[in-house]
Amino acid sequence: MIPAEIILRKRDGKALTADELRFFIRGYTDGTLPDYQMSALLMAIFFRGMDYKEIVILTELMIDSGRCMDFSHLNPYVADKHSTGGVGDKVSLILGPLLAAAGLAIPMISGRGLGHTGGTLDKLETISGFRTGLSLDEFRQAVETIGIAMIGQTADICPADKKIYALRDVTGTVQSIPLICGSIMSKKIAEGIQGLVLDIKTGNGAFMKTAVQARELADHLVRIGQDFGVKTDPVFTSMNQPLGRFAGLWCEILESFDCLRGHGPTDTMEVTYTLGSKLLLQAGLAADEAEAIELQQKLISDGSAYAKFREMIHNQAGDATILDDPTTLHQPACRQDFTAPASGYIQAMDTYRIGLATVSLGCGRLKTNDSVDPTAGMEFLRKIGDEVSEGQVLIHCFNSDSDKLLEALSLLQGTITIGPDPATHQLILK
Amino acid sequence: MIPAEIILRKRDGKALTADELRFFIRGYTDGTLPDYQMSALLMAIFFRGMDYKEIVILTELMIDSGRCMDFSHLNPYVADKHSTGGVGDKVSLILGPLLAAAGLAIPMISGRGLGHTGGTLDKLETISGFRTGLSLDEFRQAVETIGIAMIGQTADICPADKKIYALRDVTGTVQSIPLICGSIMSKKIAEGIQGLVLDIKTGNGAFMKTAVQARELADHLVRIGQDFGVKTDPVFTSMNQPLGRFAGLWCEILESFDCLRGHGPTDTMEVTYTLGSKLLLQAGLAADEAEAIELQQKLISDGSAYAKFREMIHNQAGDATILDDPTTLHQPACRQDFTAPASGYIQAMDTYRIGLATVSLGCGRLKTNDSVDPTAGMEFLRKIGDEVSEGQVLIHCFNSDSDKLLEALSLLQGTITIGPDPATHQLILK
Repeated sequence: MIPAEIILRKRDGKALTADELRFFIRGYTDGTLPDYQMSALLMAIFFRGMDYKEIVILTELMIDSGRCMDFSHLNPYVADKHSTGGVGDKVSLILGPLLAAAGLAIPMISGRGLGHTGGTLDKLETISGFRTGLSLDEFRQAVETIGIAMIGQTADICPADKKIYALRDVTGTVQSIPLICGSIMSKKIAEGIQGLVLDIKTGNGAFMKTAVQARELADHLVRIGQDFGVKTDPVFTSMNQPLGRFAGLWCEILESFDCLRGHGPTDTMEVTYTLGSKLLLQAGLAADEAEAIELQQKLISDGSAYAKFREMIHNQAGDATILDDPTTLHQPACRQDFTAPASGYIQAMDTYRIGLATVSLGCGRLKTNDSVDPTAGMEFLRKIGDEVSEGQVLIHCFNSDSDKLLEALSLLQGTITIGPDPATHQLILK
Repeated sequence: MIPAEIILRKRDGKALTADELRFFIRGYTDGTLPDYQMSALLMAIFFRGMDYKEIVILTELMIDSGRCMDFSHLNPYVADKHSTGGVGDKVSLILGPLLAAAGLAIPMISGRGLGHTGGTLDKLETISGFRTGLSLDEFRQAVETIGIAMIGQTADICPADKKIYALRDVTGTVQSIPLICGSIMSKKIAEGIQGLVLDIKTGNGAFMKTAVQARELADHLVRIGQDFGVKTDPVFTSMNQPLGRFAGLWCEILESFDCLRGHGPTDTMEVTYTLGSKLLLQAGLAADEAEAIELQQKLISDGSAYAKFREMIHNQAGDATILDDPTTLHQPACRQDFTAPASGYIQAMDTYRIGLATVSLGCGRLKTNDSVDPTAGMEFLRKIGDEVSEGQVLIHCFNSDSDKLLEALSLLQGTITIGPDPATHQLILK
């Protein structure tokens, strides 16, 4: 087969055959097919899409490129959560320990920051000593013994996806529904889970800008889940403003601690409870959403969710004692405030640009090999609907590189729209 | 600037700024920007196009990436010819010496096979000893002394285009009008020419499939030529069947010899004369097309065009004595015939697939580093409109690799449509 001919066929709108997809995905994974041909194909897929059959083949090829976990011998319901990504989205860090405390088994494989969004893995790695690179045996053992492990993508699970995901991030080919489907579902299916809840984000800071796109993505994901035997529930949430009080690295870990100790911001907790309820219902641990929320609130108020987080950190070689005085770690050397350019009500926040500004601060990467700054982040003091006065601090920015801090502040210019009328923000979309 | 953000802007249909294009083209040329980001951008340009301003900036950037020739001190009219590429198109090899014999100065920089089409450079390199890699000083000196030199793209002239052209070939991004415009015109303008004739091919073996696309391309090229001070005339010809008797490497050199000695196939000569007339008229060496054709016929019949080809070969260190007995060189080890599957008239030839079959034979490359087989080629014994009987030989295939020969023959299956009615083929399109 001629790689350029396969690219041409997709470019010209044809569906690729199983053989063609296999040739490309396997060739790219084993290094015989170069990056530049894969990125051209990815861009052609961005424009031309893939039919459902192609997506299933892509998903299968990604799963088959590595090993699969098997937890069928476990008693607990084995489940995971996936978010399509946003700014300030630290829900995995809260939901994982919370559901493990509820008795579920959570084998969670997370990603790094992608584009303008933060990555669970980058956040976890700011915890001193925390190992995100467990072997599959260690991963399985952790899930079996304490009910939860959170790791990064390993070379063992979906290596094809891992390599393609890194390439998409730097070639403008992230926002493609078939590629998103293949990437998400291959990893989740390979985790050996029974159930999955999806946080499908829409809005100006999400990869899916419209409800129609979000619905299409959800339909595909749910269908793939079903076809591979994973019960999959979608939840639609808004990314028209950052989620929670912080967006960044260590600062999001601190916010997660707060959430697990009952001091979390309302919006972060609402998303957490809504997602958690889906899995508790799937697992048969609650009869309805109200009961599921009540169970989650109890696990937070009695300290067991927080204890599970500490247990997980300890189990993955992290320094759990840091939780006793978390402010000693990763103190930013530089701080600067972004203030309101006018008085009135916050009407809108350009979450995409705010996300790019967090990347500039050092919370994400422009190139795959860039390093991140654990101290970097933003604190959002005001959100949509809040009344503000000109000059009032809206966002508190911090990191340890003053040049990058200035760059981020300049990116923030114009991201907050202020007007005379009250405004509202709907978080959970029906 | 963030490369992925520039890719995103083009992907989303925005016009890139001069700064963005400069950042990308320079970065790619000097190696700081990787292949995979350039190929993603190229595919985005394929889908989204470029406006005229972007094309001019791209052309300028490619010119500025290297050196420019200057022949303004010469008396003769300095001109060149460009073909958008086809199967069996050896017109440059004939027209160059012919126009040099007419007194024009021809500084010709040619390319290698691209996709399914042959490359002048690959053909020239089958001549023993022939140096396509002259330095710019040698190139200038050759044009000054004997009036013609044919070389490959050097590192000195448009290095940006050279690198991008190689990448486009293997990433399905050849057929993009803005990219074609930038690539063609940058090299031609950098040659320091006064006049240019373009062979714009359309049809099933051309990169432009329709007359509308061809017209659009021609309009752009003529406008760029004018804006950069190069008088540019387009000629539209059909690529609905291979041009001439042969398509391949050494066999096309032999056909060129025949043409320059007055034994060329009618179609090859018609295209040659039509293109040549445009430049002779530009140069003021003929008053009208009839006079221009007559002059060219005279230069062939009196042997001066053929002598100029020998002189050029000798001047570029090629073995010109091979012309005295050309059949001693590059004898193919394998031969096989493709025969008519039915009786009737040839209605159509799938020239694209025939071109791919010549690539399979060894006349072109699947990957940039593939080597070519100088002995490889096809002889077309019958063309559109010819009456044939079932089993009669239509195409004689030859090379020196029996596996590739079989592959080529299988690609030829179904490429020749035979029907009961007479058919015609219009070569020069008005």
